[in-house]
Amino acid sequence: MDSRNAGGRGGIPAPEGFRFSATSAGIRRRGGRDFGLILADRPCVYAAAYTRNVAKAAPVLWDLTRLDKARVQAVLVNSGNANAGTGEEGLKDCARIATAAARELGMPTRRIFLASTGKIGSRLPVDRILRALPGLKAEADPRGVDRFSRAILTTDTRPKLEHRTVHCGGRSAGLLGVAKGAGMIAPRLAAVPHATMLAFAMTDARVEQPELQRALAQAVERSFNRITVDGDMSTNDTVLVLASGRVALDRAAAARFNDALEEVLVSLAKQIVADGEGVTRCFTVAVEGARSGEDAQIQARAVAQSLLVKTAVHGGDPNWGRMLAALGSTLIPFSLEKLRILIGGVAVFSGGRGCSEVMLAKARGHLRAREVPVRISVGSGPGHATIYSTDLSRRYVAINAHYD
Amino acid sequence: MDSRNAGGRGGIPAPEGFRFSATSAGIRRRGGRDFGLILADRPCVYAAAYTRNVAKAAPVLWDLTRLDKARVQAVLVNSGNANAGTGEEGLKDCARIATAAARELGMPTRRIFLASTGKIGSRLPVDRILRALPGLKAEADPRGVDRFSRAILTTDTRPKLEHRTVHCGGRSAGLLGVAKGAGMIAPRLAAVPHATMLAFAMTDARVEQPELQRALAQAVERSFNRITVDGDMSTNDTVLVLASGRVALDRAAAARFNDALEEVLVSLAKQIVADGEGVTRCFTVAVEGARSGEDAQIQARAVAQSLLVKTAVHGGDPNWGRMLAALGSTLIPFSLEKLRILIGGVAVFSGGRGCSEVMLAKARGHLRAREVPVRISVGSGPGHATIYSTDLSRRYVAINAHYD
Repeated sequence: MDSRNAGGRGGIPAPEGFRFSATSAGIRRRGGRDFGLILADRPCVYAAAYTRNVAKAAPVLWDLTRLDKARVQAVLVNSGNANAGTGEEGLKDCARIATAAARELGMPTRRIFLASTGKIGSRLPVDRILRALPGLKAEADPRGVDRFSRAILTTDTRPKLEHRTVHCGGRSAGLLGVAKGAGMIAPRLAAVPHATMLAFAMTDARVEQPELQRALAQAVERSFNRITVDGDMSTNDTVLVLASGRVALDRAAAARFNDALEEVLVSLAKQIVADGEGVTRCFTVAVEGARSGEDAQIQARAVAQSLLVKTAVHGGDPNWGRMLAALGSTLIPFSLEKLRILIGGVAVFSGGRGCSEVMLAKARGHLRAREVPVRISVGSGPGHATIYSTDLSRRYVAINAHYD
Repeated sequence: MDSRNAGGRGGIPAPEGFRFSATSAGIRRRGGRDFGLILADRPCVYAAAYTRNVAKAAPVLWDLTRLDKARVQAVLVNSGNANAGTGEEGLKDCARIATAAARELGMPTRRIFLASTGKIGSRLPVDRILRALPGLKAEADPRGVDRFSRAILTTDTRPKLEHRTVHCGGRSAGLLGVAKGAGMIAPRLAAVPHATMLAFAMTDARVEQPELQRALAQAVERSFNRITVDGDMSTNDTVLVLASGRVALDRAAAARFNDALEEVLVSLAKQIVADGEGVTRCFTVAVEGARSGEDAQIQARAVAQSLLVKTAVHGGDPNWGRMLAALGSTLIPFSLEKLRILIGGVAVFSGGRGCSEVMLAKARGHLRAREVPVRISVGSGPGHATIYSTDLSRRYVAINAHYD
């Protein structure tokens, strides 16, 4: 397996048998490409994970209830409008779009996967979307992923891509991931059939559905389910993996594929955090020594989501006091004497007390980086968990208070 | 019971038998009065509620473990330093302060209630505090509550006071409440022995301890435990009620006293929210029709704490989509068809869909107010709950990223 970060523009190696396109359908007020297509040459095995939000958006409900259980061949994604909070009419809009696309693309309606992201509460401009379909099909191209990756963005400032190759015998299978997401990011996806983050991965490897779903569940748990920008769970979060089946994998290669999938999703998840709304600095909270993994996750999330911690990180202050308060707010017991908090490797709290001013100054130095590791040891239990988070800036407020 | 809001300065009617003072002990870097005293003429029945935070500050641990169970006669409060995260040494500092104060004030150490608020993680300047004690005692005055109320402030911009009188027969008992708090505000107090909000209420009514504790538990549950500024639970939150016992109450008057206590605490809680860090606008989320009160509280809190809802309120946008997403993120089921969201009385979402642009414009008008009521009906269950919250402004970020 070689690791090439495909984050750049152009020349991204797509796995064989997938084409991409993007067009402007007039969905976003500010114009630009807002409608994208992933088109597979043949029906693909797929695995998906959707938001757990009770108020699931219409496209999520569509995918959950109307799709063919075995195969998907096309993915239609729009930005600018989440088709959420739109009730029965939103679902009808999904049906109209999928039906027309099926006719255009020459496949059953049930093979068309839908995803939307954008503002909640407005109907999609279905007529304009339908008019855009022929062009979308005509321009589908194996090298079109860059355009696709930009058409699905909302408040993102840059596309998110990652790529791996898995070798097996003399052959190689590609794995390409593309994602979007900058706000309303605190996904809790249920991969046993649950941001708005959207992520799509395509591979030409052959993977059976149960294995693909299992691999996705584990990869999602260690990637998208571990990030937070604003603590707000979206109605539209969706992760989809498509496997076209061209390249058979032996057992060892299958294991490498699973690792590659996790690596791709972790990379995309971190790209989302790094491009979070108004973000100037990221931090990673790794809790270890907890009684259980679940406890560790609750504690890490409490620190990672605390507004006071996020603003302190923004200000470049190694404020362990706020981290301590956040840990304590979980009501999960821990011993202050055993607690250790490390910022950028510097122990700012240990042995029941804060560090010296000298050490604090060292920690402050580490907070100048774009990415700050925070390690918290809460005891000697086996539980550990890592959450990827962002600082909170005035620009975040500006973006979300004075939009549109 | 007459209702006078004592929120102004000067001339606030304190119940008989209580004196107040405040001085500058050099605890806050920026100077000014930072050390206050409430001194009762005689030992008082008391009821208290403390933060549930696992990382309780030293003064909270002191009050929980060292106080006389029956009576308290003096309350020492400092701002500028929370004496939290200070371990055993912090507790020893509490002991030194209480011991010296006991000698100065002529009462047992166990009758001295301690409370601190400010930065976490530094030792208190105990020597300076001890030197300030004689002056604090000498200036204690029945009319000193205004000075006291200012000495306990941190990022607050104004003091918080409320007052009621309970009549019984020909006599009347006073009830005076004073509080501080602007950040790290999401208290969950345990009043069966659980913000940094601090609140102190003094009355000269005669109330037995179990009744006082019960009344406090209920009042706290409907006041401080229903507010959020930043979602961050403090290590120091404390609410204390002192009853000196001068005025006996009959049964009817005792019920009025309980009502008055709740009114005073609700008023103080709302004053804290209105003066929250960087706050330009408050909103109240009242959920009704939930399956249980607990469900209603979880749902109301999710909407009240959502960064996206808070920034939308800041921007004056009636963004029901973000409220819908926040409700759904709780994973508590509800029917979209039955859901109703009202902003300032305008139904912005009902019957499974959002309202017209005309109604939305009306709702937008209501969002210009300093206080915005949001009512959410999630079904036809008996559960209801109200949470008081604030918008999220750029000033909040500035205050908490670039302090000190």
